[in-house]
Amino acid sequence: MKINTIVWGENIHDQTSPVVAELYPGGMHTCIANALNVDENINASTATLQEDEHGLTEARMNETDVLIWWGHAAHGDVDDKVVERVVQQVWSGMGLILLHSSHFAKPFKQLMGTPCGLTWREAGERERLWVTSPNHPIVNGLPDHFELEHEEMYGEPFSVPEPLETVFISWFQGGEVFRSGLTYRRGAGNIFYFRPGHETYPTYHDDNIKKVLVNAVHWANNSQQRRTNMTDAPNTTVDNALEKIVERGLKLHADGEEGFK
Amino acid sequence: MKINTIVWGENIHDQTSPVVAELYPGGMHTCIANALNVDENINASTATLQEDEHGLTEARMNETDVLIWWGHAAHGDVDDKVVERVVQQVWSGMGLILLHSSHFAKPFKQLMGTPCGLTWREAGERERLWVTSPNHPIVNGLPDHFELEHEEMYGEPFSVPEPLETVFISWFQGGEVFRSGLTYRRGAGNIFYFRPGHETYPTYHDDNIKKVLVNAVHWANNSQQRRTNMTDAPNTTVDNALEKIVERGLKLHADGEEGFK
Amino acid sequence: MKINTIVWGENIHDQTSPVVAELYPGGMHTCIANALNVDENINASTATLQEDEHGLTEARMNETDVLIWWGHAAHGDVDDKVVERVVQQVWSGMGLILLHSSHFAKPFKQLMGTPCGLTWREAGERERLWVTSPNHPIVNGLPDHFELEHEEMYGEPFSVPEPLETVFISWFQGGEVFRSGLTYRRGAGNIFYFRPGHETYPTYHDDNIKKVLVNAVHWANNSQQRRTNMTDAPNTTVDNALEKIVERGLKLHADGEEGFK
Amino acid sequence: MKINTIVWGENIHDQTSPVVAELYPGGMHTCIANALNVDENINASTATLQEDEHGLTEARMNETDVLIWWGHAAHGDVDDKVVERVVQQVWSGMGLILLHSSHFAKPFKQLMGTPCGLTWREAGERERLWVTSPNHPIVNGLPDHFELEHEEMYGEPFSVPEPLETVFISWFQGGEVFRSGLTYRRGAGNIFYFRPGHETYPTYHDDNIKKVLVNAVHWANNSQQRRTNMTDAPNTTVDNALEKIVERGLKLHADGEEGFK
Repeated sequence: MKINTIVWGENIHDQTSPVVAELYPGGMHTCIANALNVDENINASTATLQEDEHGLTEARMNETDVLIWWGHAAHGDVDDKVVERVVQQVWSGMGLILLHSSHFAKPFKQLMGTPCGLTWREAGERERLWVTSPNHPIVNGLPDHFELEHEEMYGEPFSVPEPLETVFISWFQGGEVFRSGLTYRRGAGNIFYFRPGHETYPTYHDDNIKKVLVNAVHWANNSQQRRTNMTDAPNTTVDNALEKIVERGLKLHADGEEGFK
Repeated sequence: MKINTIVWGENIHDQTSPVVAELYPGGMHTCIANALNVDENINASTATLQEDEHGLTEARMNETDVLIWWGHAAHGDVDDKVVERVVQQVWSGMGLILLHSSHFAKPFKQLMGTPCGLTWREAGERERLWVTSPNHPIVNGLPDHFELEHEEMYGEPFSVPEPLETVFISWFQGGEVFRSGLTYRRGAGNIFYFRPGHETYPTYHDDNIKKVLVNAVHWANNSQQRRTNMTDAPNTTVDNALEKIVERGLKLHADGEEGFK
Repeated sequence: MKINTIVWGENIHDQTSPVVAELYPGGMHTCIANALNVDENINASTATLQEDEHGLTEARMNETDVLIWWGHAAHGDVDDKVVERVVQQVWSGMGLILLHSSHFAKPFKQLMGTPCGLTWREAGERERLWVTSPNHPIVNGLPDHFELEHEEMYGEPFSVPEPLETVFISWFQGGEVFRSGLTYRRGAGNIFYFRPGHETYPTYHDDNIKKVLVNAVHWANNSQQRRTNMTDAPNTTVDNALEKIVERGLKLHADGEEGFK
Repeated sequence: MKINTIVWGENIHDQTSPVVAELYPGGMHTCIANALNVDENINASTATLQEDEHGLTEARMNETDVLIWWGHAAHGDVDDKVVERVVQQVWSGMGLILLHSSHFAKPFKQLMGTPCGLTWREAGERERLWVTSPNHPIVNGLPDHFELEHEEMYGEPFSVPEPLETVFISWFQGGEVFRSGLTYRRGAGNIFYFRPGHETYPTYHDDNIKKVLVNAVHWANNSQQRRTNMTDAPNTTVDNALEKIVERGLKLHADGEEGFK
C-alpha cells in the first residue's frame, strides 16, 4: 500500500514573484510532489493555503500518512482550526515534515513548544550539509556531505527542543552553522524538520534534496492504526484495577467520573 | 543570592473541600512554600488563581527564578495572556516545576506540544517511586526508592515528549507504572514534571517529597541573565557576515528587513 | 529481500537444566528463531556458544542484518575476539537485540559504556509490561499493556545511558519497576534491549513477546550498505579542502599522515 | 568546599616539540590548571602519563570531583588498569571532561561504546564555535559565537552516541562542521567532550576557552556521595520483597545467591 502524502504549499511567492514562478512553474509544492511520485511506494498530492480549509479537511487527513509543509510569508493566515487539526493528526500518528521557513509555521511552533528562532541572511551563499547520523534511514543513498551552491543562510542558536537525533548540520559560506535535519516524535507522530528550500533558488530540483525528501516520507510514515484517543485521560475504576485493591483514604472524584482538563 | 521562587496554587479545593482544607490549612501552595523556605538559599512566596493576573504579573516574574505550578480543577480558568507570559518567561530562562494534575495545565501542554494524556484512579493506593537516574541533582539525599502510602494513580502511556532524563518511575499497587520525574529544556528554561501530590492526601508533608522539591528548585534555577530575544529571527546582512561573502543569486528580502513570522 | 537474522543462545541451561530443556526442546534460541520465521520477511537461523567461534564468524556476520543475543551463566566464556567482532558489526550497521540477562553480556556492556547493573529476584512473580511510546514500530499490534504471569524480577536503578526512546516499562508484583524496552544507536547500528525471558518460564512461547521480537527485528534492520570505515579518522589535506584555504601556523603532522589513535 | 579537579596531560609534545613547549611552558595541563585555579571554587592540580600510575591512583581519584583529560600521541600507552579505574570513578560520580584529541582516548571510547571517529586537517584554519543550547550552564558568560583564529579541523560524521545536549557546533574555514560540545551521563558521572585544543596553537590561552573550562568543571561536579555499587546486581529475596509475594514456579537460583556476570 502506497504512502499517502500531501505536499502543502503556501503558494504565494510561487504566484506573485516572477523569480519563483520561473523556477517552480505550478508552485514548489507541485515540484516536490512530482519528486516524491517517482518513488513507486509514495502517492503524493498537493494542497495550498488558498483552497477551502487550506485543502486540509479532516476527511482528507484521515487518509493521509505524511504531510509535508512549506510556508513563509503567510504563517499568520493559516486558520487556527486547521492548525489544531494538523496537530491532532500528528498526535494520532500522521507523519509531518517541515521545510525551511516552516520553522515559524504554527503547527511546528505548537508541536515544539519553543520559540523556533534563528538568524538568517538571503545572499545566495553556498550551503554544505553534513550527515551527522550515518545510515539513518533519512540519509539512505546520500554521500557524507553535499552542497547547495545558492541558499539562504539560517544560523544558530536555533531554539528548538533537543531532537531524538540530529541528522544533518549545515555549513554556510558566511560563517554560520545550523542543525538542518532534526527528528522528533510528538504523540504517535514522527516529525522531521529539514532546513533547505528558499524559494528563489532551485533547491527542490537538486537530486540529493529529492532523495532526502523521499527517505523522510518513508521514515515519517507509520503504518499502524491511528490513535485517536491521545488526549483522553481515562479513569480506571477500582473495580477494573488490574491488581485487586481496596479503595482507601479520602477522595474527590466519584467512580468513573471524567477528570479535569 | 537566594533563588526567588513562586509557588502557584489553583487554590480551589483548598478552599471548598473540608478534606483538603484540613490537610493543608492555608492551601497546598503555602505548605509547599514553607517546605522550600527551610532551605536557606531559597526565597519562596505564593500566588493563586484568584489574585489579579493570577498573581503572575510581568514585573513579578521578571524577578522570579523558578515557578512551581499546581492546578487541577480549573485549568480552563487560567487566562491565556498569563499562560503566554509564563511560557515566554520559561523560554527566557525561568525554571518551571509542574506538580501532579498540572500535566494538563495550559503552560505545560503548550511547552510540551503533546496531549499529555494518561490514565488515573483515585483509590488511595500505595505509590512507590524508584530513582532511575542515580545521583541526578534532583535525587540528592534520597534513597533508591520511597513510598507514599496513599496516592492517586497515574498510568502510562503518558503522552509527553521523550525527556532529557527520566529521574523517577512510579509503581502503583493497582498494577500501573508511570514516569513520575521528567526533565526538559525549552528555550533557556529548565522544566521538571513531578507526579505526586493529589490534594486529598498528605503528600506535601512527606519528607522525601519535600527533599525532591528543594532539589528541583536548585536544579531548575539558572543564574544566567534572561534571554529576552528568544523569539527573534534577526537578519545578519551581507555586510555584517562573519566571513566575507558577496551577494549572489535572486532574492526576496531587502537588506536588514524583518523576516516573516 | 528477507532480513537475515541470527538468534544467538548461550545454550547452557537449555542443556543442563531439565526445567529449561522441557520448556524449550532444542533450546531457547531455536524457539525464538521459529517464532521469527513465521514472518515471511525474516530469515532466522541460530548460533550458540559451543560452536566454533560461537557460530559468529566474520563471514557469517557480514551477511547478517540483525543479531539477537541471549546469555546468562557464561558471559565470561564469550571470546573477546568475537565480542570485538560483534561490536564492530553493530558499528557498521548490523542490528542487535539483547534479551533479558544479556544486560550483562559483554557486547552490551561495551556498547553502552555503563555498568548495566540492576536488582533481581527469581520468584515467578507477575510482570506487566506497559507501552510508553505509543505506535513505536516495536509495539505494532500490541495492546497498551500485557502480562507475563511468571517472570524473574529486574528492578531499577538500571544503570544504562538514557535511551533514544523508552518503549516499555515493567510493573512487578513484588513492588519494583524496570525500563524493559530501550532503543539505542551506536555507530550505524540499531540496538534494542528487551527485558523478559528468564529461562525457567515459558516467556518465548507468549504471543505478545513473539510479536515484540518480530517487530524489533524489522526496526533494528538497516537495509543500507554497511559502513566499514567507522573507526577511521581520515586526514583531509589542505589541497583537498572543500573550501580553498591556505595552510597557516605551526603544525605537527605531515600532509596525509595518519592521526594518532 | 572547593571542586577538586585533576588536569591530566599526556605531556609528550609539551616536552618534545619546541613549538608546543614555547606555547605551553610547563605543559598544557599546567596552563589549564592555572586557568581553573583563578576560580575561587576550584582547586586544580595536574597529573601526567609519565607519573607512577599516570598520577591517577585510586586514593587520589577518590578525592577528585572532576578529571580533565588531554591525550593525543600516546593513547595506547595508557595502562588499561588505570583506564578501568577512571571508568569506574566516572560511573560512581566523578565528572570527566575530554579535550580535543581525547576523542580517541581509551576512557572516552569505553564510556561511549562507539568508534568516536571523525575527519581532521592540521592547517591552522579559523574555527568559529556556535552556542546551540542558550543559557546552558557550560556557556555562562559567553557570546553566541566566538572564534579561534588557528585551530586543527575536526569534521563530521563524529561517531559518538546522541548526547544529552549539543552545546556547541563548530564552523571551519575549510568547509566542515563539528559537534564541539557534547554532554553525557554514564552511571552517576557527568561527561563533557569539548573539541578545541590542538597543541600547536594558543587555544588554552583564549579567554572564552578558559571560561568554558571553568563552567564545565562546575557543571560536571556532582556534590553527592559517590555510588560505589554501580556494577552490583543485588538479589532482593522473596522475604525482603517490598510487596508481600509468594514464590512460585520453577527456578535456577538459591535465595540470596549472586547473579551471573
